[in-house]
This record gives sequence, structure tokens and C-alpha cells, in this order.
Amino acid sequence: MPTTTSRQIVLRRHPVGMPAPGDFDLVESPLPSPKDGEVLCRTIYLSLDPYMRGRISGARSYAQPVEPGQVIVGATVGQVLESRAAGLAPGDIVLGYDGWQSHAVAKGAGLRKLDPKQAPISTALGVLGMPGMTAYVGLLDIGQPRAGETVVVSAASGAVGSAVGQIAKIKGARAVGIAGARDKCDYVVRELGFDACVNYKTGDLAATLRAACPGGIDVYFENVGGDVLRAVMTLLNQNARIPLCGLISEYNATESTPGPNLRPLLFNRVLIKGFIVSDHLARMGEFLKDCGGWVREGRLKYREDIVTGLDRAPEAFIGLLQGKNFGKLLVRVGEDPTR
Amino acid sequence: MPTTTSRQIVLRRHPVGMPAPGDFDLVESPLPSPKDGEVLCRTIYLSLDPYMRGRISGARSYAQPVEPGQVIVGATVGQVLESRAAGLAPGDIVLGYDGWQSHAVAKGAGLRKLDPKQAPISTALGVLGMPGMTAYVGLLDIGQPRAGETVVVSAASGAVGSAVGQIAKIKGARAVGIAGARDKCDYVVRELGFDACVNYKTGDLAATLRAACPGGIDVYFENVGGDVLRAVMTLLNQNARIPLCGLISEYNATESTPGPNLRPLLFNRVLIKGFIVSDHLARMGEFLKDCGGWVREGRLKYREDIVTGLDRAPEAFIGLLQGKNFGKLLVRVGEDPTR
Repeated sequence: MPTTTSRQIVLRRHPVGMPAPGDFDLVESPLPSPKDGEVLCRTIYLSLDPYMRGRISGARSYAQPVEPGQVIVGATVGQVLESRAAGLAPGDIVLGYDGWQSHAVAKGAGLRKLDPKQAPISTALGVLGMPGMTAYVGLLDIGQPRAGETVVVSAASGAVGSAVGQIAKIKGARAVGIAGARDKCDYVVRELGFDACVNYKTGDLAATLRAACPGGIDVYFENVGGDVLRAVMTLLNQNARIPLCGLISEYNATESTPGPNLRPLLFNRVLIKGFIVSDHLARMGEFLKDCGGWVREGRLKYREDIVTGLDRAPEAFIGLLQGKNFGKLLVRVGEDPTR
Repeated sequence: MPTTTSRQIVLRRHPVGMPAPGDFDLVESPLPSPKDGEVLCRTIYLSLDPYMRGRISGARSYAQPVEPGQVIVGATVGQVLESRAAGLAPGDIVLGYDGWQSHAVAKGAGLRKLDPKQAPISTALGVLGMPGMTAYVGLLDIGQPRAGETVVVSAASGAVGSAVGQIAKIKGARAVGIAGARDKCDYVVRELGFDACVNYKTGDLAATLRAACPGGIDVYFENVGGDVLRAVMTLLNQNARIPLCGLISEYNATESTPGPNLRPLLFNRVLIKGFIVSDHLARMGEFLKDCGGWVREGRLKYREDIVTGLDRAPEAFIGLLQGKNFGKLLVRVGEDPTR
């Protein structure tokens, strides 16, 4: 098979503030043939996630930044075109980390083969992938909700938040979402079964949140920061837990924004714990067993927001940072042979 | 024995901002005779502690506020004058919670008899009392320092901070203090054996703290908040732990002050946990055994700042909030028969 090329979206420059389309370039690059242990894949789905804003910022973080000229990182579901890796054959569907490009050569050892009969292949990037596992370990291992407690989650209609609230319900807790649009709030309550959902863009957030949480807040799964966190701080119960997963409202800030006053943490004995899902890979087996089962039983629902065409990835990613997506945001880069 | 009277300091009004002498009144009140199960005590030492600022504020907290006209709360070491409680006899020295007054009638069941041969009786209010136990449970149960890690503590020459650093050293960690005066810093390093101490009032705190913590910060025992916390946030290592014990720099704020930006907690997977020592009374036995032993061995030193005369309590308390005390602040209300 001849050497192929890959259409790639590379970083032109580290964005300052909200990323703009001009911070990205679409290029076409030749790919080497796969060496021993490697496979050539074509990308079917590219996952777009808030953490990518940190990776393209050039600032210190928990991972190497993406530098100008480099392909932007990201999880992908692809199909094997050519394999020199044991256990993988052309036609196989795999979960990988090939980034924002149409084709890639990758080590077979880093790929997980997906069985389209078990679940739609796109779920490996969402409810049964990193976002779902983020919800699972953050809520259960740090938040530790007990039956009857109130769990609040921000970005409630998103990939992580929608799973947090549903898992909280499965565990017998009361689930209250916070989202930025009426249709998102309606979806979270009517489709996902949350007990309530508050629109942070309308009215007095602290007051509406208080009305939605008459027993206070025991667990706050934090995805956004800013004003939402400040409102939550006034409602925390004693011994509340805050799994700190993300602070998307602050990711485009050009200077460090102040955080909430911490006194409520003190007298309420509150725990805050930052976490990164990749530290919790030992929980993968339990996560897939539990969440896979709940998805098959219809108890853990998900919604995908699929954009078609790699060239639309920058625009879709900017929309994600602005809260424009509705559900797990994916780019369909190539044909899905299972649909 | 006739009914006696008690000289008392009562709250005149809830202070706004830094308390002033005019927020307090010195009064003399008759005391009832002790009933069955009660004792009459005279106060020897009154403990002054930062948490009292919260109690006199009138605001919601973890305990009932002190209202105008009420005696201000506080731990005391006293001597039994008259007893109708089993196991307590006139002359006994007891640890109680009689507040800012010269005499009190209290339930015998709430008192702990002290043995002056075991340790100076004033230590029951300091290194072997609530402040010492706060250091012990906050550092060991939440901070969990490992040998070789760096532990930073603010208010390092105070009752809690001085114990935190010394216990960190006993556990094999590196101890770095933060204090507000050169003589306090010198004391912390030369007398208490901390590895370094930074004066937060001179120079660029973030830079001097960075120089004192070349390996970053693994545990930050928080007593003060404000600018000190902001400087610490820039130096936290991955998986750092922050026992949140106090925020004294903010206790007199008349409006809610912003806190630090929380992004460093996220990518460094940091834990913050607010705690109140009274939740941890189950650890009392281990605390007294460990810290009592370390005090007797000379490995856990302490310093007392003793003011004489109940009428000076308001002035001394205001000085505490301004960082004027040097060591555990006590008021000698009556003669100490053991010295």
C-alpha cells in the first residue's frame, strides 16, 4: 500500500483569550508507512473537549503543550487501513489518540479495539470514554454521594455533566443541574431525569439555585468555575465535597481571575479535590462494567452533537468554549461504517 | 460558702471590621451556688484564639454566636473552689470552657482534671490543648506529610503553626514557616528547628517563598488566607494537600474578599479540606500520648505570651488579630498556684 497523506489541523499560534479561527491552520502532510508494531488508521470521529484549551495555551499544565505547527491532540475513533501490529487487522475499529487529522500512523499498543455490537463506536469518546469515566471517578471516588444527598453539577447537559447527574440518581441522590440555555435545562430534567436544572444565564443564580436545593448542597461537581462556583459556595452543607474537574469559564482569561472566598470551606469542613481522569485508569474495568450496563439498560442516556468535516473542528471547538454545543461534541472526520 | 460574684467581659456589640475596645464591657455579676453535679471555679488562665472573632461576629458559623450582653466564650484553666460534682474537690486544677470571666459555675462532667506534675497547667490551653490538637489532626490526618516532603505553615510562630512545623520535622518532612516579623522567623528556625521561615511583610513573598521551597510545596497548613495563600498556590506540587484551619487575614473583612484562582488545584490534583478540631475528638488519646511525649522529650517546644489581668483581654485579643502576640496568647486571670 502506498504512503498516504493526512489532512491535519495544526496550531498556528497559541491563542490569547478566546481562540479564533486564525489560530489554526489546515495542512496536508505525508505519512510514513507503519513500522513493526504500528498501524495506519483513518479517523472516523474526533472528540472535542474543554481540556484542549489548556493544551494549546502554551502554559504549564499537567501535560506537554501543543506548539505552533503541531497537530492538535485529541482522542479519536478510527478504522485500521493497514496493520503491522499483532491483534489488529484492516477494518478493525479502534479508540486512539490521533488528534485533529484524517489519517495517522500509531503504535498498536496504544489502541483499544472496539466492538460495534456492544455499543455505538462514538460512545468510546463520550459516555463510555474519557468524559464518562471522568464523571464516574470524580463523582463516586471524590464526591461519594449518599442516598438522599443533593448533588449539583455544572455544564449539566455536556458529556461529563449529563453522566454525573444520572449516576447520582442511580446512587439514590437528588440531582440538580446548572446549564446555560432553557432547552438544555429542559433536556436535563425531562430526558435525563434530573430533579431540577437551573439556567445560570437568567435571573439571580444564587436565588434560583437555593430554590432548587432546599436541603443545601452535599456534592458539587465542578466543571465551570466563576460566578457559578461563587453561587454554590453559599449553599454548601457541612462536610460537602467538591470534585474539581474543570473551570471552563476561566480557560480564556488573559489574566488570573480571583476565585471564591474560601471561608465557607472552613466552617463547613468542605473538601475540594482537583483530579485528572488519567490518574484513575485502574478504575477502567469497573467503569466500563457499570456504565456499559447502565447504558444498555437505558438508565444512562447520552446525547451527541456531531459536526461533519475536519475543517469545521476549529469553529466547533470555539463553540464548545462558548457553551454552544448541546451534548457530547464530536467531529465526523470520515464515514462511520457502522451506521 | 456564700454566693460569689464574677468579673466578666461581655460583648457590647458585634464588631464591624477590626474589633475595638469599645465593643467590650467589663461587668460584675453574681453567680449562683453550684447545684448537684456542678462546681464553682476561679479562672487561672484564659485562652485567646482567632476563632473567637467568628463567634462575636453575629454571623452564621459552625457554632452559636455570642450575642451582646453575653460573656465571651473561651477555654480556661481554673481551680475548683467548691464542688458538688463527683471526682472533683476544692483545689483541683481543671480544663474548662468558662469564657472571659474570673469565676464560673460549670458542670463537672465538662471539665478535665489536670495533673500539674505531667505538664505545666497552661499547656492544656496550648501545645497540649486545642491548638496543639488542631496542628496534630490537621497535619497528620489531612496533610499526611511523608518523609522528604515540604510542609509550609503560615502563622508559624503561633500556637498552632509552631506545633505544625515541629510535628512535620518529627515525621521527617522539611518544614518552612511563614511569619510576620523577623524575630518570629528567627525563633521558628533557631529555637523550633524549622528549615526556613519567610517574613511575609518584607520583599516579594512569592519569590522568597520559592527560594525557601526549591522542591515546591507538598503540604500547606493554612491559617491565614489572603496574599499568603495566593503566593503558596503558585508553588504547589502535584497531589499537594491543604488542611484549611483558619483564614485570620480575612476575619475582620467587612465584605467578602475574593479567594485565590483555583486552576492550580485542578492540574496539580490538589486537595483542600476545611476542618474543625472538635470533629476529631476521637483522636484525643493519641494526640495526648504523642504530643505529651514529644513535649517531655524536648522535641515539641512551645512559647507562651501571657498578659496579666482579665481587663486586658480585649486589648490582647485585638493584638492577636493584628499578629502582635508572639507564641500562644493567654490571659492570667488569677494566681497560678503551680508556678
